[in-house]
Amino acid sequence: MTEETASLIVHYMVNYQGQLNRTFAALVDPTRRAILAHLERTQEASVSELARPFAIKLPAVLKHLDVLEDAELIRRTKLGRTVTVRLNPDPIRAAMNWLQRYERFWPQRLDRIAAYAERKEAEQTKRRR
Amino acid sequence: MTEETASLIVHYMVNYQGQLNRTFAALVDPTRRAILAHLERTQEASVSELARPFAIKLPAVLKHLDVLEDAELIRRTKLGRTVTVRLNPDPIRAAMNWLQRYERFWPQRLDRIAAYAERKEAEQTKRRR
Repeated sequence: MTEETASLIVHYMVNYQGQLNRTFAALVDPTRRAILAHLERTQEASVSELARPFAIKLPAVLKHLDVLEDAELIRRTKLGRTVTVRLNPDPIRAAMNWLQRYERFWPQRLDRIAAYAERKEAEQTKRRR
Repeated sequence: MTEETASLIVHYMVNYQGQLNRTFAALVDPTRRAILAHLERTQEASVSELARPFAIKLPAVLKHLDVLEDAELIRRTKLGRTVTVRLNPDPIRAAMNWLQRYERFWPQRLDRIAAYAERKEAEQTKRRR
C-alpha cells in the first residue's frame, strides 16, 4: 500500500464518520424526520408546502432545512421566487448500511419489533397506573 | 374506536417518536457507534474492555454508556466488581424500520452507495488541492 493510498483510505473513513455524524444528527429531530417523510411521499415540495403541517414559524422550518441540506439529505433549487426541495436518499443509504450489521440479531425480524412495541406499551401503561 | 384505544395509539406514537429521538441522538457520536460495533462483534464486554481502544478517560466512556443505556441500546449487569455490557438491538431495528421507507429510491443499491463514496472522495480530493 502506498502512502497516498493509505492517506486516501484514512481520509475516506474520517469523511464517512463525519457524514454519519451529520446524518444521525439531522434525524434526531422529529420535525426534520417529518419533512423527510413528506418528501418520501411527494418526491419534491415547495418550502411553504413543507411548512404547512407544522405549528412552527417559517424561519424555524428554514433552519431545519439548513440542517437537512448540510447533511446532504435534501437539495434546494430556486426558480424565480419558488424554492423546490428534493430528497437526496444517499446519506440515508449510508446510515442504513451502518445499521445493517445488527440484522443478524433479529432472528424473527417482524415478530421482534412487534413484541418490542407491545412491551414498551405495556411498560408505559403500567407506569401510568 | 374507543377513547382509550385512540389514547393508546397516540401514546404509542409519541413514545415511538421519543424512542427514535433517543436512538438517533445516541448514534450521532462516533465513540458510541464504535462501542456498539465492538458489542456487535463480541456480544458482551466489560467496561474496561470497551474503554481500552479509546484515547479518552474512563468517566467519559461511562457517560457514553449512560447515553446508550438511556436509549436502551445496551444493558448493564453487575456481578461483584465487574460490569458486563450487552447490546440490545431492538431500538436499532426500530430506527432501520423508519429508514427502510427510503429503500425504493435505491434502484441499484450497492452500486449507488459505491458511487456516492467515490463522489465524496473526489470532492474532498478536489477541495484539498
